[in-house]
Amino acid sequence: MSVRTPDPDQPQEPSSNPTPGWLSDVELAEVRQRLPLLYVEAVPVRVDGLGIVTEVGVLLRATSTGQMTRTLVSGRVLYGETLRDALFRHLEKDLGPMAFPLLPASPTPFHVAEYFPMPGISAYTDDRQHAVALAYVVPVTGTCDPRQDALEITWMTPEEAQSDAVSDEMEGGRGTLLRVALASVGQLR
Amino acid sequence: MSVRTPDPDQPQEPSSNPTPGWLSDVELAEVRQRLPLLYVEAVPVRVDGLGIVTEVGVLLRATSTGQMTRTLVSGRVLYGETLRDALFRHLEKDLGPMAFPLLPASPTPFHVAEYFPMPGISAYTDDRQHAVALAYVVPVTGTCDPRQDALEITWMTPEEAQSDAVSDEMEGGRGTLLRVALASVGQLR
Amino acid sequence: MSVRTPDPDQPQEPSSNPTPGWLSDVELAEVRQRLPLLYVEAVPVRVDGLGIVTEVGVLLRATSTGQMTRTLVSGRVLYGETLRDALFRHLEKDLGPMAFPLLPASPTPFHVAEYFPMPGISAYTDDRQHAVALAYVVPVTGTCDPRQDALEITWMTPEEAQSDAVSDEMEGGRGTLLRVALASVGQLR
Amino acid sequence: MSVRTPDPDQPQEPSSNPTPGWLSDVELAEVRQRLPLLYVEAVPVRVDGLGIVTEVGVLLRATSTGQMTRTLVSGRVLYGETLRDALFRHLEKDLGPMAFPLLPASPTPFHVAEYFPMPGISAYTDDRQHAVALAYVVPVTGTCDPRQDALEITWMTPEEAQSDAVSDEMEGGRGTLLRVALASVGQLR
Repeated sequence: MSVRTPDPDQPQEPSSNPTPGWLSDVELAEVRQRLPLLYVEAVPVRVDGLGIVTEVGVLLRATSTGQMTRTLVSGRVLYGETLRDALFRHLEKDLGPMAFPLLPASPTPFHVAEYFPMPGISAYTDDRQHAVALAYVVPVTGTCDPRQDALEITWMTPEEAQSDAVSDEMEGGRGTLLRVALASVGQLR
Repeated sequence: MSVRTPDPDQPQEPSSNPTPGWLSDVELAEVRQRLPLLYVEAVPVRVDGLGIVTEVGVLLRATSTGQMTRTLVSGRVLYGETLRDALFRHLEKDLGPMAFPLLPASPTPFHVAEYFPMPGISAYTDDRQHAVALAYVVPVTGTCDPRQDALEITWMTPEEAQSDAVSDEMEGGRGTLLRVALASVGQLR
Repeated sequence: MSVRTPDPDQPQEPSSNPTPGWLSDVELAEVRQRLPLLYVEAVPVRVDGLGIVTEVGVLLRATSTGQMTRTLVSGRVLYGETLRDALFRHLEKDLGPMAFPLLPASPTPFHVAEYFPMPGISAYTDDRQHAVALAYVVPVTGTCDPRQDALEITWMTPEEAQSDAVSDEMEGGRGTLLRVALASVGQLR
Repeated sequence: MSVRTPDPDQPQEPSSNPTPGWLSDVELAEVRQRLPLLYVEAVPVRVDGLGIVTEVGVLLRATSTGQMTRTLVSGRVLYGETLRDALFRHLEKDLGPMAFPLLPASPTPFHVAEYFPMPGISAYTDDRQHAVALAYVVPVTGTCDPRQDALEITWMTPEEAQSDAVSDEMEGGRGTLLRVALASVGQLR
């Protein structure tokens, strides 16, 4: 039921939805078969005083079938919302209000991940939909306290984060996205 | 009738549309009020043997009210389509089949332009919709022969392309996008 | 005597220089005619809670002839020094120890500025040398207190910073670099 | 004698060197202990009609001790030379005059590799010097015919090029640079 990857953001009461820019579950399900949906994704990191990435935050969560998988901060961009607002909203939703993320000054993503329902077209898959995600590395300076369906955030060294073991546990091919993120900050080996 | 900016890509016979990933005019109009739509945009350029941009291609077209405006190559990404396929399709549609564009090896855009129906949120506006456009500089090596509602392509020097005169003629704030494109190739002054 | 653009970093006692990686004034003057020198440059900015650039810091300084010019944080990369270390050192030197700069997680510059002694080859000139500068936008969170030959830091809105008036006052073509910086953070108009 | 990594570009007759911007072997050896030297590096690739990287070119060469190692196109930027000119010169030198490289329109590198004589500071080492290399992915459209000390160019799939086997054979840590290059073109897995 709660398939989440990247993230539905369902309005709580679809039947009486007063926000025209939001979609009911049924409408969203239909649109998902017709249009690529726009997402933002964030790789939370800790940096030292010189800006060097020392730790990478990976979310651990349980799927609807009880399986544990790892993922990144991600979610849909809503109608009328800027990319920055969407990024901030999803960081707060997944890491809690005390994470204090430092959003990048540049709106250009380090990578664009194209998720397709059918495997093989790109490195990324999402069986619910065709989603295109603009991905950012975001330093967080506060305390992370995952909420909703994210059970836990695991902080890893860049070396661990790019390992095959971690990569294999990540859903939808996000192990690749994590490696591309590490490449962009000079931490891929 | 033919409001185009960035680009509707209307299916020819909406009533009998057999492609589930395509939307009828009515459906598209509705979705436009509910979701940000994903676009690609391209700034066609001529480069010399060292890769230096020598000319920039700007499209001239007539709006539904008969006004002449300038624009760039742009259009929607369809369901199931990769960004590259969308980019190639729109380049061919706007510049003709003999333009021979050289798509960039990197899928990361030089800029992400956020178009809102209401002015003031960003530098870009589109009164039909909220659209997010991934923008690329694309060298073309062949002969451009604009089709459809694009009347003509004008090749300008980088200096002309960033002038206030050209900027003022461009629709939806694309004068800014053109300047950011020139900045990305080291041609902004 | 103290021509500075981008920045010599002369060791204080060249005659008894004990650091083999440093050059005496005479040696540096000679090398400047033979090799391109590597520089880093930084555009200091203030950002809001969403990472949007709200102010840009421009340095005001007096040249050896008493003329007032505007410039950016810049300086040479020394032998054995990482780009990050060089960037931090020059930020501290030009903005003081309480500026608290947030160095970018990514080592890739937003632009590479090529300074030549002869005008016309690129947008940038430096009559002392051929210098290649890796340029970064750096948010600063503390109090700036320019030292050495930088007399003052002026904080401007992005609109002011890209004006022709400011551009004309900047030395070596850095008005262009400032505009490219603003383009990279989505603030060029 | 022929230590090459990244590349010395020795003038042919140092004793009667008429070009003031060039250094004799002795002078270069001395400067190498005092200043970081500026390099360009290129990862030659083949792309398909949509710009997707299908093959990566890796150079095979013999070191002075007869060992076979793999490397990329790389070399020093000379005094008065633009980055593009340096890139083109080294591509021609390493791949021959019929390679027809398509230099990127943007001068911003996908990565900056910092080579230090002492290991551990970064992913890259060069026991001769401290070199900072601006790295570019460059599609080549013609026939490659390596010259000088490069014995051979091997074309590999992106999958092979990022394998540990290939990585281990590359000198100075360039296996990492190759992976970062593949990340930048969406081909890292």
